[in-house]
Amino acid sequence: MGIRVAVAGASGYAGGELLRLIAGHPELDLVAATAHTQAGSPVAAVHPQLTGLDLVLGATDAATLSDADLVFLALPHGQSAALAAQLPAGVKVVDLGADFRLRDGDAWGRYYGGTHAGTWTYGLPELPGHRAAIAASDRVANTGCYAATITLALAPLIAAGLADPADVVVVASSGTSGAGRSAKVNLLASEVMGDLSPYKVGAHQHVPEIKQASGATSLSMTPVLAPMPRGILATVTARPLGPGDPREALQNAYAEEPFVHVLPTGSWPHTAATAGSNSCHLQATLDVDSGRIVVVSALDNLGKGAAGQAVQCANLMLGLPETAGLSVFGVAP
Amino acid sequence: MGIRVAVAGASGYAGGELLRLIAGHPELDLVAATAHTQAGSPVAAVHPQLTGLDLVLGATDAATLSDADLVFLALPHGQSAALAAQLPAGVKVVDLGADFRLRDGDAWGRYYGGTHAGTWTYGLPELPGHRAAIAASDRVANTGCYAATITLALAPLIAAGLADPADVVVVASSGTSGAGRSAKVNLLASEVMGDLSPYKVGAHQHVPEIKQASGATSLSMTPVLAPMPRGILATVTARPLGPGDPREALQNAYAEEPFVHVLPTGSWPHTAATAGSNSCHLQATLDVDSGRIVVVSALDNLGKGAAGQAVQCANLMLGLPETAGLSVFGVAP
Amino acid sequence: MGIRVAVAGASGYAGGELLRLIAGHPELDLVAATAHTQAGSPVAAVHPQLTGLDLVLGATDAATLSDADLVFLALPHGQSAALAAQLPAGVKVVDLGADFRLRDGDAWGRYYGGTHAGTWTYGLPELPGHRAAIAASDRVANTGCYAATITLALAPLIAAGLADPADVVVVASSGTSGAGRSAKVNLLASEVMGDLSPYKVGAHQHVPEIKQASGATSLSMTPVLAPMPRGILATVTARPLGPGDPREALQNAYAEEPFVHVLPTGSWPHTAATAGSNSCHLQATLDVDSGRIVVVSALDNLGKGAAGQAVQCANLMLGLPETAGLSVFGVAP
Amino acid sequence: MGIRVAVAGASGYAGGELLRLIAGHPELDLVAATAHTQAGSPVAAVHPQLTGLDLVLGATDAATLSDADLVFLALPHGQSAALAAQLPAGVKVVDLGADFRLRDGDAWGRYYGGTHAGTWTYGLPELPGHRAAIAASDRVANTGCYAATITLALAPLIAAGLADPADVVVVASSGTSGAGRSAKVNLLASEVMGDLSPYKVGAHQHVPEIKQASGATSLSMTPVLAPMPRGILATVTARPLGPGDPREALQNAYAEEPFVHVLPTGSWPHTAATAGSNSCHLQATLDVDSGRIVVVSALDNLGKGAAGQAVQCANLMLGLPETAGLSVFGVAP
Repeated sequence: MGIRVAVAGASGYAGGELLRLIAGHPELDLVAATAHTQAGSPVAAVHPQLTGLDLVLGATDAATLSDADLVFLALPHGQSAALAAQLPAGVKVVDLGADFRLRDGDAWGRYYGGTHAGTWTYGLPELPGHRAAIAASDRVANTGCYAATITLALAPLIAAGLADPADVVVVASSGTSGAGRSAKVNLLASEVMGDLSPYKVGAHQHVPEIKQASGATSLSMTPVLAPMPRGILATVTARPLGPGDPREALQNAYAEEPFVHVLPTGSWPHTAATAGSNSCHLQATLDVDSGRIVVVSALDNLGKGAAGQAVQCANLMLGLPETAGLSVFGVAP
Repeated sequence: MGIRVAVAGASGYAGGELLRLIAGHPELDLVAATAHTQAGSPVAAVHPQLTGLDLVLGATDAATLSDADLVFLALPHGQSAALAAQLPAGVKVVDLGADFRLRDGDAWGRYYGGTHAGTWTYGLPELPGHRAAIAASDRVANTGCYAATITLALAPLIAAGLADPADVVVVASSGTSGAGRSAKVNLLASEVMGDLSPYKVGAHQHVPEIKQASGATSLSMTPVLAPMPRGILATVTARPLGPGDPREALQNAYAEEPFVHVLPTGSWPHTAATAGSNSCHLQATLDVDSGRIVVVSALDNLGKGAAGQAVQCANLMLGLPETAGLSVFGVAP
Repeated sequence: MGIRVAVAGASGYAGGELLRLIAGHPELDLVAATAHTQAGSPVAAVHPQLTGLDLVLGATDAATLSDADLVFLALPHGQSAALAAQLPAGVKVVDLGADFRLRDGDAWGRYYGGTHAGTWTYGLPELPGHRAAIAASDRVANTGCYAATITLALAPLIAAGLADPADVVVVASSGTSGAGRSAKVNLLASEVMGDLSPYKVGAHQHVPEIKQASGATSLSMTPVLAPMPRGILATVTARPLGPGDPREALQNAYAEEPFVHVLPTGSWPHTAATAGSNSCHLQATLDVDSGRIVVVSALDNLGKGAAGQAVQCANLMLGLPETAGLSVFGVAP
Repeated sequence: MGIRVAVAGASGYAGGELLRLIAGHPELDLVAATAHTQAGSPVAAVHPQLTGLDLVLGATDAATLSDADLVFLALPHGQSAALAAQLPAGVKVVDLGADFRLRDGDAWGRYYGGTHAGTWTYGLPELPGHRAAIAASDRVANTGCYAATITLALAPLIAAGLADPADVVVVASSGTSGAGRSAKVNLLASEVMGDLSPYKVGAHQHVPEIKQASGATSLSMTPVLAPMPRGILATVTARPLGPGDPREALQNAYAEEPFVHVLPTGSWPHTAATAGSNSCHLQATLDVDSGRIVVVSALDNLGKGAAGQAVQCANLMLGLPETAGLSVFGVAP
């Protein structure tokens, strides 16, 4: 008899990945999975890859979820606060949405609009001090997928004084599952295949989260939609502040981490190698012409960028081995 | 301390998938992985998705492999026999190649050329009688990926007298990993993306294996290369011999099977739902215009079509739970 | 000053391809392009690939279209009849929808539902007698994309007495643009990439059109959605009725055709080679195991399967060179 | 009787695109197309999309090519000089390789190695003064595909004093045809689909060409291989030097250009819209957080990035209309 968990927002892509990870987790028992319009449907009708999982989606309400020891919220941004407020205090919560990530309510208002719900412990265990804080928390705000990718690349360099926090330029490309499962013409396969398409150029809502988590003070970030279902590749460049080796700084930061891998010199991260895993791959160099630090970071936006990260946080919150139910290895090709 | 296994031919796609499955298997310990030109390289240099697996590829010779309790051979067709002959009798072997699949040496000669190496127990546990035979064998010939996809769809219908074994028409499309990892212009991404390309039309080498395993006596099969890395979708049509319901026949055959799923009426298999899993999805109907039986079968050519199937056979041969280390669930999207 | 043409339904994929072909046509002037919800938008906002085409989409009504010498209707199935009835008799019409393709009103009712609008000249110039009939018509029903692909492969073999019209089995895979531009979850890039997905198995609405055009009397057709934006690949198999060579029959039928190419022996059609063109590629053989005729046919569903075919018909109807404004050559890779 | 042109290196992707454009060009006659290992093959066997083009590939030697008025060289980098030297002075030449692009022989040696062949007129007509220079030249060095994409985005901003030439950061993703048609494992479809893969990070050989053409003095460029056959998307950021509007500067620079389009405010370039065309799409803004200029540029690497650009140059050199045989419009979806 394992620990009882539930997933709210189980019909989306992050929700489906959570169900897959929970189904393969040695210590967790899935007691409820809820949805809105899909409530009442068998899980396998909504997620055919979960054929064999015998469960019907329930309605997304506190009653259905309160029976769990821990609830994962995989709801659209802005919907977590109301539901979380109704859950009993004894139910732990990992929120995959943006609602509780920011400390700065003004930044929330500028980029997301509406009232800022509050701030929970930030769910990126590899940041200094965060692992213990997560383990001690009942409420954790999971990282955004872009923020996880970029912060893992950047934070150690800023912390070590190697990279200028005021001069960071990022271009990050994401697979389409990062854009969610709603039916939109610009996400149709006919539009996306063969196409690279930038969006929200000049003002992306994840910039405040990335700055808060990484320590950057000024950051240009251009997101691009790429023709692949999963994966984020971030190219993070920064002006160097001193002569240190950026790769060595990353190695020092992550030497003991099970899921963050600094690749051997000469090897560069690529997204396919992380698909289906909870790993992040990193590499860094100095550009010969400009002298800028260039770090490349790759992960699975549904894995280490969402559902995998959430399970990692849940493992910490529940006193389980941090790696339980999570794979270091990707599914490739 | 688990059971000791080794993989010969570990640098290819099926080899890489075997390493991933073995790394996640609760009872198996990987003691060697070998290759030809890549011998001496770290596994992660050849399979970046296995970053974190600390092993160097060895040379493909009997000495390196003989230390294992069971060896998986994932070699090019025609190379298994010589190596298998050098392995001690006490070492169990699962061969993922075609060498030992056929009972008919003439058919071997016609389609593959050269001398027929012999016949081992055929590694498709879901066929009547095969599970016990595999469990009792020290040498098993794993199914081919097309044969697994098509046989699971067709064999129960022929066995039940519903489908005419002399009038079977199959069109089956495969992802590119089925074509292997050798550098060929026709397999370049530039050629494949956006393209469907039939090959070996009218005379595919897997026809004898499919006929032997399914009971078909005459079979037209057209294989098509599809622009996706994994997955086989087979459309199997046959002239009906009687009034029986083909879907019901499939359900009867696979009611107790953990990895073969007949979908609910109205749902049709598609490849993405099986990616990364050891599952096969099936559905059947009668065509309203022609009256023909139409069965659609989907699986992951590297999973249930190759490495997953091989691990399932190994589990049986080693007295382990048949499903150990294998996932029913796919990685999607 | 060229011939004045208009496009109704210009916001869809076939509509966009019509605009591209008309813009490059030496004799046609585009005087209006209309849409429903997109009326009022610049063409380039709806079709960014047409940036530089300075035109605003009008409303889809007879007044806007009646100024043209010829109108292309690229409307959803069932909407052409009402609009066509309002166009002046002197305005020629090519309908890309299904409304006027079938001679058999019962078949219409069974597969499409509702009242059968009537029957226009069928727009496949390469069928015997059709070229002259099209040239003499003011109203032409353009072929469906599946029907064009399959009929070009099959009709000459049935006409020559080589193939049994009562024993035809087809599996045909289409790129996603064939499913149209409406926002549906099953057409999202996340769902489609890496996936092959059959649909309407056992009862596809295009079967009556294919039978009517090809001469088949019983036909099993399984359509599959493939992860590519354009292209149809049809594998057409039939029981042979005599000893004739199917490839030779195709060559005889199409020797003088500019857009239908029987490939050299040993080369098989693949979709990418036809992308962006008005060409259909064909090849045929006899299956060595079953003896069945196997014909493979490839074309661009938006080209020879829709907009290209429509321009070819319009050229005939307007007394222009049949190949004007159409490319024999594909855009690859 | 048109102007006689020939293509050396016709078996590659740029060569194939040249053949397609020449076949559709109203003033050019293709008199020879040559290759190395493929010499003797029909064009359609090497480029199935050109089925219907009745020509056999010749050997790549001066004798075969000298009969033309203009020769396009689409050879591997480093092979153009020797062949060009053997062509009669009266034969005009457009070289698609890198050999004659750089003015700085040292930069050539550092990035390409070997002896610098010399410097020809740089083939980017939209740069100030270049159109006339190209028209007056018998030898033109076509732009590289990355250089064209990035220079069109950057040069007007540096020329107008808006962007700091010493602080430019570029991330540019290319479709696979940019990597050529040689059989390499890392270019296999199985490796590329679902993957974004950076390469030559920190030291790309095109940096000197981009600096020379754009006026940048320090440039960090990270190239990424993207899972699509065609297209380059470049995100070009630079520190602003003053208060000017970057979009307006681009509009001023390209107001009269037929192939360079600054999109309406709010629309961002994406690669699919340019596929098959000779167009480049641009958009610019100021990043709200960092204040940096962000320009996004998209084109078809085989079109405006290679073969289309080459035909545009040839049109100028031959006194033809600059747009002859080139399409402004892309083939989408």
